Amino acid sequence: MSIIEDSYASKFGFEFIEDGGVSAPLGILASGVHAGFRKNTSKQDLALVVSEDIASAAATFTQNIFCAAPVRFSKEQLASTSGSPSYGSCRAVVINSGNANAATGEAGLAACSEEAQLVASAIGCDAHDVLVASTGVIGVQLPMEPFKDGVKTASEALSPDGGHDAALAIMTTDTVPKECAVKFDGTELGYPGTVFTIGGMAKGSGMIMPNMATMISVITTDAPIKPNVAYRLLKKAVDGSFNKVTVDSDTSTNDTCFLLATGKAVKKDTEFPEAQQFEPGTKAYDAFARALEQVCVALARAMAKDGEGATRLLNVFVKGAKDAHDADIAARTVANSPLVKTAIAGRDANWGRIAAALGRSGASFSQEDVNIDILGIPVCREGLALDFDEDEALRRFESPEIDIVCDLGAGDSSTCVWSCDLTHDYISINGDYRT
Amino acid sequence: MSIIEDSYASKFGFEFIEDGGVSAPLGILASGVHAGFRKNTSKQDLALVVSEDIASAAATFTQNIFCAAPVRFSKEQLASTSGSPSYGSCRAVVINSGNANAATGEAGLAACSEEAQLVASAIGCDAHDVLVASTGVIGVQLPMEPFKDGVKTASEALSPDGGHDAALAIMTTDTVPKECAVKFDGTELGYPGTVFTIGGMAKGSGMIMPNMATMISVITTDAPIKPNVAYRLLKKAVDGSFNKVTVDSDTSTNDTCFLLATGKAVKKDTEFPEAQQFEPGTKAYDAFARALEQVCVALARAMAKDGEGATRLLNVFVKGAKDAHDADIAARTVANSPLVKTAIAGRDANWGRIAAALGRSGASFSQEDVNIDILGIPVCREGLALDFDEDEALRRFESPEIDIVCDLGAGDSSTCVWSCDLTHDYISINGDYRT
Repeated sequence: MSIIEDSYASKFGFEFIEDGGVSAPLGILASGVHAGFRKNTSKQDLALVVSEDIASAAATFTQNIFCAAPVRFSKEQLASTSGSPSYGSCRAVVINSGNANAATGEAGLAACSEEAQLVASAIGCDAHDVLVASTGVIGVQLPMEPFKDGVKTASEALSPDGGHDAALAIMTTDTVPKECAVKFDGTELGYPGTVFTIGGMAKGSGMIMPNMATMISVITTDAPIKPNVAYRLLKKAVDGSFNKVTVDSDTSTNDTCFLLATGKAVKKDTEFPEAQQFEPGTKAYDAFARALEQVCVALARAMAKDGEGATRLLNVFVKGAKDAHDADIAARTVANSPLVKTAIAGRDANWGRIAAALGRSGASFSQEDVNIDILGIPVCREGLALDFDEDEALRRFESPEIDIVCDLGAGDSSTCVWSCDLTHDYISINGDYRT
Repeated sequence: MSIIEDSYASKFGFEFIEDGGVSAPLGILASGVHAGFRKNTSKQDLALVVSEDIASAAATFTQNIFCAAPVRFSKEQLASTSGSPSYGSCRAVVINSGNANAATGEAGLAACSEEAQLVASAIGCDAHDVLVASTGVIGVQLPMEPFKDGVKTASEALSPDGGHDAALAIMTTDTVPKECAVKFDGTELGYPGTVFTIGGMAKGSGMIMPNMATMISVITTDAPIKPNVAYRLLKKAVDGSFNKVTVDSDTSTNDTCFLLATGKAVKKDTEFPEAQQFEPGTKAYDAFARALEQVCVALARAMAKDGEGATRLLNVFVKGAKDAHDADIAARTVANSPLVKTAIAGRDANWGRIAAALGRSGASFSQEDVNIDILGIPVCREGLALDFDEDEALRRFESPEIDIVCDLGAGDSSTCVWSCDLTHDYISINGDYRT
């Protein structure tokens, strides 16, 4: 089923690909197998995403000081191909679930290196061209045994149809795989007769789990994009999507988002009126940026919706903020407030909690200028309570998505942050883990 | 029962007063009555704290932009006596529970004014000398009817033994009243034969409740302190106590802490070797500052312990921080983390979540330098997992207080922040409020 609303797709000029995922673009193969990081043999736990030839690669990583070994290692890998830890080239991304390889010291880094060697041997590439990511328990050394057969099995299973298995393999407490793909026509963008595809997968539920770490995403495309340009595109898309999700305000040790660009959509022998590579300032670049951001937003929303114990997606819109920073902190403070999130779980249009969160967010505004709507119902005008139909509000709370719109009346900046409600199941998942 | 540990009292050179509260100091009377803000007629909902003569007064208020009418009004009252919204003089503090008088606009301010007039008439003082506070539902106009008889009854009930009733009257979802009093001898401080008393009461459970707003405290003393000096003392004590408590990271619209100093411990006709008023730099000032901070800490810890749904007090110590700011944000981020708080509820010595919270806190350190102990058990050394006895950890989790000690290895600053575990009951209290 589509996780991108059709209205979005047509609005932004691209088309959703039914059942598409990370292996939808030309030149990308993927697989997901059970390697043995998890006891349940029916659960895939090793994902491999491979580009048939050298691809441009870009990445954004967690800012957490306790960053995991795969984060450190992948930065070094990228730097070895470009000098920058944020972009370069690569042939493969290998991801295991079940163990985060975090807080594992030098041994953890050595494990990453061995992992890259195994993948390089299996697919026939330089070990520097393998990026790695891990998600699972923190503080336990990564077992190498599962990689030995696992990487071999996964490389044999590589296929243009393997994206779904890869998406399954990176799940931890996610209740559903998260993947999507879109395509757009290049004819009016200077690439006649060329269709560009973007695919992606992501995992993430709690920001850190009963020790699980955490948000990981791989985005692929067959558009021709140089590494530094790919990073620029990815950074912007991530800031407007994954970085706008908050399940519990916790940021993980392993957060990673990779973008691989194969360039395979463009036939090398064709002559185009524009330069082959997408460059900033071109129509193709802009179209790609829009489509990429929407792929990331779709995956990000899917993560928020699948937040631990969540029953509802929470869309917190802030408008009328003084500037982008104020819009962001205001929306984020509301979206993170345990009191707002429990109110949503309780179907309570409790705008006092929203007002109090806005008021302590650090954003500049006057309470007399604030308007708040919940589920389209005006509940606060000019900082004062409005009478509203409680029964109608209860009915609207049946919706799987809860919109909160806050107008600060202090400027023209706006944003949206995605979160979810805070339920008994969150406490059970995170508190009852070992008892 | 004492909420100050005896060891603290002797350490800091003062004595705990059994059953003492806000009316323990000389010159202070208090009462708590049922006025009608709440339906339950057996629940006190109006507290009055009166100084027999004009007292020095100081206050700290919420920083929330959505501050409530009583906050605005009390600032104006103080300013009318001194020019400063933070200190001045007063005769009485009146507090209702059941309605926060927040998000009530001009009508809310008018209600405060009427309330002050009623108290002034009842006790015979200028209306400018009455401070007000409210706690309860946000966004509903404060009903004036209950004040009419309530203030009269409360003023008739005023007594040096009324502190306990006052502490009961300001409770909302608090499960226990929070009060304490201490005394210290002035003989070696330049006040021979003089005993000084500090009393206090507080309320607060969730930082904002099912709409309840929120932390309110009144501290009294019979020490002779000028208003501006009282503010300086109060500000420091509040920063080291109430401002170090976090139940759910939400800061209320109504947070208020008043300090009243009557000076009645000092007989006006006695000659003392030092100036009568406590001045910075004197031994008396320092002794008072220590005792005041411990009264505030005791009340603050009682608030954290009584956090909504809490089963355990969480003491998060951070040491080895680069500076005081880093110590504070590191401890606060751990204490606020829903994942840490649910782990504590689940008796899970899950240090990976603590490490991840430290890592995203913004404090500067290297993961290789971090040591973490939970309940006295070393669980992480130099950023790496330590094997520990899980059964012993489970046994220690039976304690009503859970100590987490994080050493960042980055400097000499340290702090402690108080919080509580996050349980199913928190979700029930805050989510199931109206369903």
